[in-house]
Amino acid sequence: MSRFMSKKYASLVPYTPGEQPKERKYLKLNTNESPFPPSEKAIEYASEAAKSLQLYSDPECTPLHSAFAKMCGVSEDMVLATNGSDEILNFAFMAFCDAETPAVFADITYGFYKVFADINNLPSRIIPLGDDFTIKITDYFDAKGTIFIANPNAPTGIALSRDEIEQIIIHNPENVVVIDEAYVDFGGESCIPLLNKYDNLLVTQTFSKSRSMAGARLGFGIGSPSLMADLKTVKYSTNPYNINSMTMAAGVGQLLDDEYTRKNCLTIAENREFLTKELEKLGFTVLPSKTNFVFAKSDKMEGGELYRKLRERGILVRHFTSERISAFNRITVGTREQMETLLLAINEILDKEV
Amino acid sequence: MSRFMSKKYASLVPYTPGEQPKERKYLKLNTNESPFPPSEKAIEYASEAAKSLQLYSDPECTPLHSAFAKMCGVSEDMVLATNGSDEILNFAFMAFCDAETPAVFADITYGFYKVFADINNLPSRIIPLGDDFTIKITDYFDAKGTIFIANPNAPTGIALSRDEIEQIIIHNPENVVVIDEAYVDFGGESCIPLLNKYDNLLVTQTFSKSRSMAGARLGFGIGSPSLMADLKTVKYSTNPYNINSMTMAAGVGQLLDDEYTRKNCLTIAENREFLTKELEKLGFTVLPSKTNFVFAKSDKMEGGELYRKLRERGILVRHFTSERISAFNRITVGTREQMETLLLAINEILDKEV
Repeated sequence: MSRFMSKKYASLVPYTPGEQPKERKYLKLNTNESPFPPSEKAIEYASEAAKSLQLYSDPECTPLHSAFAKMCGVSEDMVLATNGSDEILNFAFMAFCDAETPAVFADITYGFYKVFADINNLPSRIIPLGDDFTIKITDYFDAKGTIFIANPNAPTGIALSRDEIEQIIIHNPENVVVIDEAYVDFGGESCIPLLNKYDNLLVTQTFSKSRSMAGARLGFGIGSPSLMADLKTVKYSTNPYNINSMTMAAGVGQLLDDEYTRKNCLTIAENREFLTKELEKLGFTVLPSKTNFVFAKSDKMEGGELYRKLRERGILVRHFTSERISAFNRITVGTREQMETLLLAINEILDKEV
Repeated sequence: MSRFMSKKYASLVPYTPGEQPKERKYLKLNTNESPFPPSEKAIEYASEAAKSLQLYSDPECTPLHSAFAKMCGVSEDMVLATNGSDEILNFAFMAFCDAETPAVFADITYGFYKVFADINNLPSRIIPLGDDFTIKITDYFDAKGTIFIANPNAPTGIALSRDEIEQIIIHNPENVVVIDEAYVDFGGESCIPLLNKYDNLLVTQTFSKSRSMAGARLGFGIGSPSLMADLKTVKYSTNPYNINSMTMAAGVGQLLDDEYTRKNCLTIAENREFLTKELEKLGFTVLPSKTNFVFAKSDKMEGGELYRKLRERGILVRHFTSERISAFNRITVGTREQMETLLLAINEILDKEV
């Protein structure tokens, strides 16, 4: 910290993204990217947009908002595109929390929620998951703050049903409930159908996982027109041109090819079931995942050690050091071939130990 | 405002970007875009990057930081790429201002400074420009806050010399001085050469004007390694993947073709001198611009009226309604042909009035 940095950030600990090492080629199973490229139309549209970069991108994101709203079955004033879903989440922390309205979230969830609260100088109320790493919905009733729930949750992969989320919404009529659906397309139930019943629900989604566009940075908020108007006030007060024109075009292209997305999600779900069964055969405990990753612990080796031994062999997975989950690793589900490479390496590592 | 929006934003007025009407085709001279497309290399690199969008962009922006630092003649730890220069400016408001450290800026300058202060709940100290719309540097000595100066200034187009800025820096050893050089490439003096002498200087630049990449959203902060470390803390606490991989690639491509940028800037400067002389012949007062726009008022017609009459004829310029400058219009300098079209229209409008 320089002598000029505001003291309000003295204890701020930034988010640590998954490592992106450059010294060698890795099999990257650490950041939940898709193993499939974006659709041909996304590539084509982005390349076309690159030719006119001298013009500002449309701050209203009209064609993209229109295409995404249509896919969700909502009106255009119920969606807002952002620079990744991190941006819509940050906007929600800014708009709907303050000194009197804490951010309410689980102890084991997307690690950025705590950072968003801290950078915005907001109080947090942290609710522990159960011993089985599930969310107990009654813990969130009458929360007296703005609720942030990743559903399915990360890094556990465990999902609540839409009915369970609806109970949380019903029991928080005066609080905003933010459901972060980054991983919903791999087997979870989206809460978008609840939007016509509740004006205190904000759903966030991303194109980084199921839509093969992590590098484009595209996220969305979906909610009642009045919530979206608040979030647009924040957008127009921080970065009106938050989406560049290539990403906007790629997003439209990707949405035109929704069948491709659906097919890829089904393949990932199949590969997840394969990986889960094989890991269980090797003595792993694998939490029941509805995402494109599994959260697994070995009965033979500590999580950090397995992470390091895989890394030595050129395979990156994600290990979190916080106490309750340090036995586990979060492993991205890729192609069947990638899963077989991983399983072979784990087999060899565990064999050597015996 | 919904009933859920934090009361801290009750009086927030978001920034209004220049209009981007879609109902008809306009000659757009209202948002200071370049009339020239990005370089061939920028287009080619961006199109190539679009093929691998399934992977996250590099949060460290390594090749882009390296290329930009080289162009500036500084080390890589002295630069930070952001999602447009609006993002680096917002980061600077967040990092270097607080309740005890107001943001200090001119009454007539980039309108977003006030909005950045307001969205971050920061006090502002606003210093009026002189009657001739120039900045009096002694007004900024011992500012007791973080100084934001657009140099050249917008919408006036008037520049301070590097020596004048240095005087402001010298007289503010305990304050950060942010010099927003969005328009510097069209004839201003950059303060980058001062960076090896002062650790309280932050320069911001953008690829939106001289580098024909407004639609890509790419800005930069350039400053001492300790200031940049503070700004990186903010970046990693809001949006670690703030630059998408297509923009990153396009930026590298554009920097490889710096001669193209220089040539375009010279053409714009020539067209600016042409436009200025012709407007003066028509009775306009034109402030001495070092940018890709002119700020001009007619001796025959009120600013708002001229704006509306040009708009009716399919030509957009920017008119600001605040009292001190409502007689003026800000007109982007484009190609010689565009300037001739504009002048013809102005001629006709003023002729009709007589």
